[in-house]
Amino acid sequence: MASISAALKSRVRRPQYLEKVMKAEDTIKFFKPGQYMGWSGFTGVGYPKMIPTALADHVEKNNLQGQLKFNLFVGASTGAETEDRWASLDMIDRRYPHQVGKNIKKGINAGRIRFADKHLSMFPQDLVYGFYTKDKEGSKNLDIAIVEATAIQEDGSVILGASVGASPELLQMADKIIIEVNTSIPSFEGLHDITMCRQPPSRLPYLILGPEDRIGTAGVPIDPEKVIAVVESDKPDNTGPNAPADDMSEAIAGHLIEFLSHEVNQGRLPDNLLPIQSGIGNIANAVVGGLANGPFHDVSVFTEVLQDTFLDFFESEKLKYASATSIRFSPDGFKRFYDNWEYYRTMLVLRSQQVSNSPEIIRRLGCIAMNTPVEVDIYAHANSTMVCGSGMLNGIGGSADFLRNGKLSIMHTPSARPTKSDPTGISCVVPFVTHVDQTEHDLDVIVTEQGLADLRGLCPRDRALVVIDKCAHPDYKPMLKEYYESSLKDCLAAGRGHEPHNLERAFKMHINLMKNGTMKLDSW
Amino acid sequence: MASISAALKSRVRRPQYLEKVMKAEDTIKFFKPGQYMGWSGFTGVGYPKMIPTALADHVEKNNLQGQLKFNLFVGASTGAETEDRWASLDMIDRRYPHQVGKNIKKGINAGRIRFADKHLSMFPQDLVYGFYTKDKEGSKNLDIAIVEATAIQEDGSVILGASVGASPELLQMADKIIIEVNTSIPSFEGLHDITMCRQPPSRLPYLILGPEDRIGTAGVPIDPEKVIAVVESDKPDNTGPNAPADDMSEAIAGHLIEFLSHEVNQGRLPDNLLPIQSGIGNIANAVVGGLANGPFHDVSVFTEVLQDTFLDFFESEKLKYASATSIRFSPDGFKRFYDNWEYYRTMLVLRSQQVSNSPEIIRRLGCIAMNTPVEVDIYAHANSTMVCGSGMLNGIGGSADFLRNGKLSIMHTPSARPTKSDPTGISCVVPFVTHVDQTEHDLDVIVTEQGLADLRGLCPRDRALVVIDKCAHPDYKPMLKEYYESSLKDCLAAGRGHEPHNLERAFKMHINLMKNGTMKLDSW
Repeated sequence: MASISAALKSRVRRPQYLEKVMKAEDTIKFFKPGQYMGWSGFTGVGYPKMIPTALADHVEKNNLQGQLKFNLFVGASTGAETEDRWASLDMIDRRYPHQVGKNIKKGINAGRIRFADKHLSMFPQDLVYGFYTKDKEGSKNLDIAIVEATAIQEDGSVILGASVGASPELLQMADKIIIEVNTSIPSFEGLHDITMCRQPPSRLPYLILGPEDRIGTAGVPIDPEKVIAVVESDKPDNTGPNAPADDMSEAIAGHLIEFLSHEVNQGRLPDNLLPIQSGIGNIANAVVGGLANGPFHDVSVFTEVLQDTFLDFFESEKLKYASATSIRFSPDGFKRFYDNWEYYRTMLVLRSQQVSNSPEIIRRLGCIAMNTPVEVDIYAHANSTMVCGSGMLNGIGGSADFLRNGKLSIMHTPSARPTKSDPTGISCVVPFVTHVDQTEHDLDVIVTEQGLADLRGLCPRDRALVVIDKCAHPDYKPMLKEYYESSLKDCLAAGRGHEPHNLERAFKMHINLMKNGTMKLDSW
Repeated sequence: MASISAALKSRVRRPQYLEKVMKAEDTIKFFKPGQYMGWSGFTGVGYPKMIPTALADHVEKNNLQGQLKFNLFVGASTGAETEDRWASLDMIDRRYPHQVGKNIKKGINAGRIRFADKHLSMFPQDLVYGFYTKDKEGSKNLDIAIVEATAIQEDGSVILGASVGASPELLQMADKIIIEVNTSIPSFEGLHDITMCRQPPSRLPYLILGPEDRIGTAGVPIDPEKVIAVVESDKPDNTGPNAPADDMSEAIAGHLIEFLSHEVNQGRLPDNLLPIQSGIGNIANAVVGGLANGPFHDVSVFTEVLQDTFLDFFESEKLKYASATSIRFSPDGFKRFYDNWEYYRTMLVLRSQQVSNSPEIIRRLGCIAMNTPVEVDIYAHANSTMVCGSGMLNGIGGSADFLRNGKLSIMHTPSARPTKSDPTGISCVVPFVTHVDQTEHDLDVIVTEQGLADLRGLCPRDRALVVIDKCAHPDYKPMLKEYYESSLKDCLAAGRGHEPHNLERAFKMHINLMKNGTMKLDSW
């Protein structure tokens, strides 16, 4: 047994757990190749650090690369020093349902890691349904879950940290549990609203009628007998700064604020809008920044992740309440958050990703969903995940949970991106996206720094004209128009003119990109 | 004022409406070019017949083709003598969100009809949100709605017929209402559970915890002052026989029953399964027929449409209860249904399509969703709507409502279809579907007469191997394998090997089909 610090003692209110305290390196004996393992964590916060690091050290020191591989399940992504380091040490066989990191991406695209992305609202329930463990021998449970806690309640319940994610379901499905209690950050007790997953046919409605409604408990209830080790952690979440806004993203935010104002004027949105969902990245930051300086008051947020700009939004006093599953602040952002803990804990709630991303609640609340794709096409399909149809970036995340179910489904993207040889070598508006994650049936609005295309009520042919006209980069407008018009002519002649395409040309811009470093074609 | 039959008098319990009775041809004066119009109806039942027919006669007699065109909104499709005849008379400008008929399809693919398909659960709410009328001058309401009723209640509420569909919202949004009271079929009073659409932020949960739960009213409440005419109708729903099962569809049903039995044995489904959703067509009929003769008892159904085989399923006493938005029986099926009205009215409920297809309820109940696509690809994307990427068939319907949200999402299709020159000229398993309606993130199982591919928990590369091995037609297996293997090699070399594709070859089978009448290639 390791010595128990005063800090740890003050966080662990169930004395029996203190008997299980050990050092991270002493837990290595619990791990075996091929285990099904769950970690807490979501968007790089709230994940275990001590044990994944100890295991990586162990593999490195003993040259066990490729010999100690796991099936790893985490709500979304974790910090680079854990899953990404694991990937570089060939410690990951299977990984669901999202990831971030240079090495893990490389492992996936090299065919070494068996990854699949899944709607984040759906992953935890499919886990509970046994879909990911159906070929596992013995118990259909996960072998082991490692969770980061910021405190432990008297009954053994786990108070999570800066994310909830899939931790409730991962703990529910684990045969054995190891808890890392992080004493380097404050206890988050009171910030979470934890609900456990019931199986159909006995599932119940989520009685959440507004972002501020709470229906659960503060901690994740677990079976204390499953706890095999408790490890003190002194490592904070390894986040970096948020992507700052720039001219492009501010132009997009401007178009969006104008559009939302128009919707309010037309009576299609209330004065205080409807609950906002905003993704990650510099455009999302510019949009939230725009709202903090914008004309709307008493706004609420029902989203997946909060970034630093939400702190500004709160401080503008225009944001009334926010619900999410994770707060992915920069180190400075976390400091602001901790310094004003008493204020913030009344202004936001963190829920499990099954609830934060629930189609039921998103549709009921009529969320305004805003996300950034890799590319969109002229008929309003969006690619959220793949480079040239085959190379995984991070995964679909919660984009489709929100875009399918929001009242307004908005995709925002630069109209073009640079390649090595051409500052506008990639058009983000293409004839046919190389991977469809959001369909034409799901999107209402596409916006780039060039302008905003309102696609509601338009047939595909009319959509194409508006998307090219309002959203495409000037370098690509003639090319896209020519694609559309010649496809229209051919398809009408063939009696297939609903959504005109020329399948011989559909991916020609992408093929040119792969061969010549730009999507610009000399001719079709 | 027209003379009022005794039959009509007995159905209309609000006397004021009887003062508005007129003949269908006398309503023509209410219609003007460019109007926004709603009809009741769903999958060819419960739609108005008298007035659409009178208007078509009027156009034909006076050579008004192309001069009396409407924006037509119906929950789904109607009978051929109405919307399809209208299309052949060029009376439809815009049409949302689904359709069936040779001429309407032709008009859409000829660029004459501005059609777009939309998730059927979403269409009524988007209508109430004003998304389809946002460019309309004056009121954001529809100008006029024509609804088929089987009775009128004292307060003027409308008792619908064999479908609910989007009728509640179409009536809610109409400035003027015309009611066709159909006295040739029995009153359906007591069969419907009608809920109206509240707008966010004040929407409430649907407190439906099982297919049999009722939360609404028998009739659709309307403002009686909006009613400008009542017309007696003597025309029954113009349905034909259902598509019969054949060897292919029975082989698919066999694979599915075996799979469901396995899931029960593994504890991933209860003994009586979970509520079944089944689409339309011969495979769906074979599956429901298979359940009627299968090992499961006390089964329930939460679906969109019931066809004749559900009557067999009820009579097998294995089906406990069914919820839908429409009963599309054959004439014989309707006779069986009416003859046993007292039995059936306790065994099923018809809801609005916003509820029958609600993501909230489908996910809560954990439905088993089963639908037929046009084609699937090796990574489990499905095309539900388009021929060769451009030619509209009928629209997405409710397929994505169920496949996104069900506990088990299943696509069943023949492995190949005939062309004029080749009995297996079309492979329904392709490298890349030419239109994506369901993504790889939505499907769990693909089944053809060749076999069943269980894709849960598999990464794309593993999925491709299983789909080709289990589902593809033997004529196409070598071709698909070669596509996959050469793409894998190239993509791994390029560091994009997550979901291997060769964009120069992705649509080559389709291009060959269009040029040479078969998907069979001499070489890649």
